[in-house]
Amino acid sequence: MSVIDQLTRELSRFPGIGPKTAVRLVYHLMKRPKEEAHRLSQAVRDVADRIRPCLVCGNFSEAERCEVCSDPGRDRSTICVVEEAYEVGAIERTGQYRGQYHVLGGHLSPLDGIGPENLNLDTLLDRVTEGDTEVSEIIVATNASVEGEATAVYLENVVRPLGPRVTRLARGIPVGSDLEYVDGTTIAEALSGRREM
Amino acid sequence: MSVIDQLTRELSRFPGIGPKTAVRLVYHLMKRPKEEAHRLSQAVRDVADRIRPCLVCGNFSEAERCEVCSDPGRDRSTICVVEEAYEVGAIERTGQYRGQYHVLGGHLSPLDGIGPENLNLDTLLDRVTEGDTEVSEIIVATNASVEGEATAVYLENVVRPLGPRVTRLARGIPVGSDLEYVDGTTIAEALSGRREM
Repeated sequence: MSVIDQLTRELSRFPGIGPKTAVRLVYHLMKRPKEEAHRLSQAVRDVADRIRPCLVCGNFSEAERCEVCSDPGRDRSTICVVEEAYEVGAIERTGQYRGQYHVLGGHLSPLDGIGPENLNLDTLLDRVTEGDTEVSEIIVATNASVEGEATAVYLENVVRPLGPRVTRLARGIPVGSDLEYVDGTTIAEALSGRREM
Repeated sequence: MSVIDQLTRELSRFPGIGPKTAVRLVYHLMKRPKEEAHRLSQAVRDVADRIRPCLVCGNFSEAERCEVCSDPGRDRSTICVVEEAYEVGAIERTGQYRGQYHVLGGHLSPLDGIGPENLNLDTLLDRVTEGDTEVSEIIVATNASVEGEATAVYLENVVRPLGPRVTRLARGIPVGSDLEYVDGTTIAEALSGRREM
């Protein structure tokens, strides 16, 4: 197999990159200076060799504990539970959250054979029961999909008996949307969750 | 800058990959086995180090001459001129063409400051005037865009005086399309290019 075909095959493994896109990427790379490809090659290798899951929360990290878990300024009594590590970044960028995170690494999906034992759940329960600081609130930030909701309900059932409040992100109208284009289920959720002005 | 940010930045350089897609790709990579990332890293490096333009036609190649140029079974009297090297593959896959190729490396675009001197044109004229085999036909396969058409007209003007026939790919209704959804210009071209059944 030629080196072009080899790179095309490796790139096609990524989600959202089909064979045609992969070919385009390869040809783009060949038109660029060699140094750029070397930098990319090195960056891929560095990520593979130096990134690992944080021992505490499962977030990706260059050290044993991720930046959030090792920051003494973060509130340790609140843990926000997300499905995937890249969702931590989405919440961090708001600058509105000062607590901890916990990355499940997916959601419950019985049809795909993914049960509680396949998620990063035991360590979450350990954090709640055995941590140095008492955990007073678990914010469930799983996705607003069927599987995300099922995972949220499961979490509530296992965490609430241990003591902490269990909350979830508010459902409602996304900021900046026209009501006309918002789906009915979301409007219904926004109605039932309405707040005093 | 963290290794994650570094890889995200390198991936964002690709056309069609914005910062958000880049982040997704990086996280996908981190969830896969380390060996997969190592293979990708190596494939990127191999392409950078081992692929170069074919000395004859400008196509990407692992040797001095590309597979087409070094194949003694290919007809040397016909040269198909394309804008980019990946278009060679599109024509090769039809299995209907047995001649040579020439890769311009772009199209004329005065607004972007790309003139004839920025394209791989001199070597094409050399092939026509100085090759061992007489070149009897140049097939212009530049894109059906404004720039591609301008490049085609320019090519015709410089090549025809040297002797060869200059042809271009037929314009017409794409196979499998509903006439209803084909644009007017294409239908007009298909009409003027109509053939006996």
